[in-house]
Amino acid sequence: MSGSKSIEYRDASPEVRAVFDDIKTTRQVDDVNNFWKHLARDPAVLRRTWESIKEVMAPGALDPLTKEMIYLAVSVSNGCGYCIASHTAAARKAGMTDAMFGEVMAVTGMANETNRLANGYRVPIDPAFDR
Amino acid sequence: MSGSKSIEYRDASPEVRAVFDDIKTTRQVDDVNNFWKHLARDPAVLRRTWESIKEVMAPGALDPLTKEMIYLAVSVSNGCGYCIASHTAAARKAGMTDAMFGEVMAVTGMANETNRLANGYRVPIDPAFDR
Amino acid sequence: MSGSKSIEYRDASPEVRAVFDDIKTTRQVDDVNNFWKHLARDPAVLRRTWESIKEVMAPGALDPLTKEMIYLAVSVSNGCGYCIASHTAAARKAGMTDAMFGEVMAVTGMANETNRLANGYRVPIDPAFDR
Amino acid sequence: MSGSKSIEYRDASPEVRAVFDDIKTTRQVDDVNNFWKHLARDPAVLRRTWESIKEVMAPGALDPLTKEMIYLAVSVSNGCGYCIASHTAAARKAGMTDAMFGEVMAVTGMANETNRLANGYRVPIDPAFDR
Amino acid sequence: MSGSKSIEYRDASPEVRAVFDDIKTTRQVDDVNNFWKHLARDPAVLRRTWESIKEVMAPGALDPLTKEMIYLAVSVSNGCGYCIASHTAAARKAGMTDAMFGEVMAVTGMANETNRLANGYRVPIDPAFDR
Amino acid sequence: MSGSKSIEYRDASPEVRAVFDDIKTTRQVDDVNNFWKHLARDPAVLRRTWESIKEVMAPGALDPLTKEMIYLAVSVSNGCGYCIASHTAAARKAGMTDAMFGEVMAVTGMANETNRLANGYRVPIDPAFDR
Repeated sequence: MSGSKSIEYRDASPEVRAVFDDIKTTRQVDDVNNFWKHLARDPAVLRRTWESIKEVMAPGALDPLTKEMIYLAVSVSNGCGYCIASHTAAARKAGMTDAMFGEVMAVTGMANETNRLANGYRVPIDPAFDR
Repeated sequence: MSGSKSIEYRDASPEVRAVFDDIKTTRQVDDVNNFWKHLARDPAVLRRTWESIKEVMAPGALDPLTKEMIYLAVSVSNGCGYCIASHTAAARKAGMTDAMFGEVMAVTGMANETNRLANGYRVPIDPAFDR
Repeated sequence: MSGSKSIEYRDASPEVRAVFDDIKTTRQVDDVNNFWKHLARDPAVLRRTWESIKEVMAPGALDPLTKEMIYLAVSVSNGCGYCIASHTAAARKAGMTDAMFGEVMAVTGMANETNRLANGYRVPIDPAFDR
Repeated sequence: MSGSKSIEYRDASPEVRAVFDDIKTTRQVDDVNNFWKHLARDPAVLRRTWESIKEVMAPGALDPLTKEMIYLAVSVSNGCGYCIASHTAAARKAGMTDAMFGEVMAVTGMANETNRLANGYRVPIDPAFDR
Repeated sequence: MSGSKSIEYRDASPEVRAVFDDIKTTRQVDDVNNFWKHLARDPAVLRRTWESIKEVMAPGALDPLTKEMIYLAVSVSNGCGYCIASHTAAARKAGMTDAMFGEVMAVTGMANETNRLANGYRVPIDPAFDR
Repeated sequence: MSGSKSIEYRDASPEVRAVFDDIKTTRQVDDVNNFWKHLARDPAVLRRTWESIKEVMAPGALDPLTKEMIYLAVSVSNGCGYCIASHTAAARKAGMTDAMFGEVMAVTGMANETNRLANGYRVPIDPAFDR
């Protein structure tokens, strides 16, 4: 088995095709990304992941661009190469400008730095935070 | 030496007091958080960290609330207890509602899940992402 | 010096060859993986790592397949590309089926998601867990 | 707002009560853990997380004990205090002995060590892994 | 079983006592830290971990203080509360001054920040690094 | 937009050129690394990051080689491929020998292992650490 095996629409089971079709309709795209073609190796994982993503990323109290930038910030923090590439593309499509990208990176970088400073200096939580 | 040692304004050097004063003026607060009182053990770290934070968190292409929610998402992802408490409080102060908090958590959770699915399925980057 | 330098059996010192021989005998393979050829740059690290791995991965209260799936889940969680590839291969060799792989990924993904939800919601530990 | 706010059954909405009831029935417990009482602050997050967990942790190609040990290994690797406590308890309930616990820890520890050795030595993936 | 169970010298098996004795002799201390008392629940994990630590932390090409500061930097980066406390104490004992502590924190913080900037900007490796 | 876009000196704005010039003078190199050419997409991030790095990595209570080895250990722990390559090169230039590299890796590996053992065994902090 290849380390990286994807399933194309033409080779997919009806269950997988139904998910692919829903992704294409919801996102108005001609084909699904490699992420979905790989998850398709396990139809239950594919379906559950798509249903959750679809619900979580829909407009709500936060707009889609804000959600994509948060997704990008977490992916950058975790160092997931595929996710950084895919969510940079998705955030750009949702309206992220060069200036916004620079600020998402700056905030993500600072958060990673100060998270460690707080760890290392063993800072106790201020009582005021819970008021 | 205590594992967690902070420096209060009354005991601070002029260099540290200048930073504390700037934090209080910029944020319009009566006292600085424990984070700054602990960093004050090393005045150079205190000054540099504050100057960077002040610049990075100022309104720009992104508004302060969006920046605080990104900061929170990264802190949650890294599991920094102090930072989660302080940036939840800061985001609330900047206008984060209960519904927004729930969506920040949901996006952060999904990103952490799909980052690992992309890792585990060894998904190659779609050429379209770089177009 | 190359960023990635390995030592082949023919160029190895007697100390390194002894470890390579033990790996080949224990695992019944013709050659050792790149991981060991790179660690061989520091014979003490090579020997100590192999001795620990040999002891930890031997059958015990847990069977080798379960151990390999745990190893894979941690490697996926940490995003170590080499380790994901090598322990996917090792788990397959130990009997991991496609269905098992899908479930390891699903559990690893959910754990990463709920770890962050527990962090973000700042959930206190239930007293019952320690009973 | 408290940093850590939970919702008890008596104060819960019908939507939240339905999830709590399903957790209690599925797991045959008298009350739900703090994790669910906190997620209940956002009923959509609560429902979606429970439905995914219920599906993922059900017996399948892997038995529940193996799944709980993988969940524990990932939680230990990520350093989530709540999750370590809750999944240690869950794994014990599913049959994890002291000896199994020791081996899960040993494998998790070794995986974290060798993940970094593979990173640091910049080991290239063996072609054989993808065959 | 308690979530946190330790084994004291008086209750330890001969195998565990032998490790405790070696730790006390090597480090010239009257009692071992909680870390070792907890690992003692699994004598094989205790022995293997101590033997590796003893070998790795012995003076070599790097002096013990440098090794302790690296250990501290990694523990801060990973957010391990126990390890931050124990290795701050160990580094102080080995000679780490307040100024050195501040610089270890500063470097650790910057590394965590720039690691994410390199991830997010998707910076390709310079060919010169491998020359 | 390409996923990875850098700015060369000839195409840079005066603000970016000033930072590039300072890097080249400070480090006595003919050209800046890809890291800086990519950060140059956001001149404010470039300038702030360089000023912080310049200050943090200057000789102080710790010498430059010790700082580079700590930087490398953190980068290895975080799994940042670019940073591992660049800081291995920087540490070598500052005097890191093969033996030192092996020991940095060994300490980093052990710290990552024992961080998880401390998490998993839920070891409470020794009161003596804070004395």
